[in-house]
Amino acid sequence: MKKEILYGVHPVFEALKAGRRDFFEVYIAKDKTSKRIDELVAIAESMKTPVERVEPLTLKSMTGTDLHQGLGARTGPFPISGISDIFDGVRSNDANHLLLLLDNIMDPHNLGALIRTALCVGVDGIIIPKDRSVPPTPAVSKASAGALEHIRLVRVTNMVNTIKDLKEKGLWIAGMEKTSDKSIFFSDLTGPVAIVIGGEEKGMRPLVKKHCDFLMSIPQTGQVNSLNASVAGAVVMYEAFRQRHLSL
Amino acid sequence: MKKEILYGVHPVFEALKAGRRDFFEVYIAKDKTSKRIDELVAIAESMKTPVERVEPLTLKSMTGTDLHQGLGARTGPFPISGISDIFDGVRSNDANHLLLLLDNIMDPHNLGALIRTALCVGVDGIIIPKDRSVPPTPAVSKASAGALEHIRLVRVTNMVNTIKDLKEKGLWIAGMEKTSDKSIFFSDLTGPVAIVIGGEEKGMRPLVKKHCDFLMSIPQTGQVNSLNASVAGAVVMYEAFRQRHLSL
Repeated sequence: MKKEILYGVHPVFEALKAGRRDFFEVYIAKDKTSKRIDELVAIAESMKTPVERVEPLTLKSMTGTDLHQGLGARTGPFPISGISDIFDGVRSNDANHLLLLLDNIMDPHNLGALIRTALCVGVDGIIIPKDRSVPPTPAVSKASAGALEHIRLVRVTNMVNTIKDLKEKGLWIAGMEKTSDKSIFFSDLTGPVAIVIGGEEKGMRPLVKKHCDFLMSIPQTGQVNSLNASVAGAVVMYEAFRQRHLSL
Repeated sequence: MKKEILYGVHPVFEALKAGRRDFFEVYIAKDKTSKRIDELVAIAESMKTPVERVEPLTLKSMTGTDLHQGLGARTGPFPISGISDIFDGVRSNDANHLLLLLDNIMDPHNLGALIRTALCVGVDGIIIPKDRSVPPTPAVSKASAGALEHIRLVRVTNMVNTIKDLKEKGLWIAGMEKTSDKSIFFSDLTGPVAIVIGGEEKGMRPLVKKHCDFLMSIPQTGQVNSLNASVAGAVVMYEAFRQRHLSL
């Protein structure tokens, strides 16, 4: 089984809280002491997971980064969900699923930021393609402030086929496209909806775009006419939230 | 006069477009050729600004970063605005100014991201304190994708006194505060408003908070209950935009 080295306070704590990964060993920098660390040691001991005190430099070389904040953990791989995990067991009261489809998001920071916001908004699941996306690495968990550890994330081989399946399940496929003159604020995002967001440089792939039911954009003014991908995603996810929870 | 080394494609181009900084010299990495570079050379020549071709490593040591994208420029300092620049010469048709007040934003990436979104939303001006904010450095311009070069940014010595002045001008001071149970979606952001956003860790300072007319928060669900500061800023700025432009 592939193992991973998680790092950073949020990823390690949230992975423990979520309870979805196997924990083989927890690493704590020798110079690191705090109440949270004591808490972590107690949790690890209750799980019979060994805790090793290591030099900060060892942690750096284990994790390959300076961003470890004195904490690491050797764990099982990130628990990838299936499409059925999104549709079974959530929303027993309604079928108004809200999904996020990410195409061409190649930057771990953007993917992490989108996952973090999606969890806050209460998105039911995120779908990424196997080939045109950064995978859910420890760096993504760090960039998501640990939100990755809780979210249902599905990796699919063929995004277009997935979109066809979602349409059959009754979802509307709403794609973000800068050149669209339909504003997100005039788009109906209240029913079962999958919002598709493309990468910052190129957007989504043409074939993915072609299979969207409609395209929409965020109105923008000013001389520098572009929002960061994770910011655009946050704005549209919260517009969906507003419409779904607060329509007057 | 203090000089700065701008770096990156967007900061250099947007600073040229904005025409607010003196340009003393443009640096282009020797290995860098493209239509945009030819364009840049032509603009620089028309401004009688010297262009120097340098080694990529020289550019790295000049800018202190790997993120220069083969482009640098020695310029005058960022043109700080005064409060009067925000109120004179904009909004001849109405007095419904939209301002952004940032307190305790110490991370250049967060400040840059907030500035980038503010420009897209059409915020009239941003106010930061001299002591509790990262200053508008070239790193902030890079993180803003050059949006900094166009925005009206004011640095003030005393944020509380500034808030009092803004109140006298008729602005409502609306502070973002996680613990508030008043949703941004139920807050009136249509009139003259200054939105106050604090840093990701500590929020805004207590005395700044005390002087807000009201506090509001972004509703959140899920296990990891926190939005990134620049994401939270984007969501509230676009809610203000929606209310101001699209109320039905």
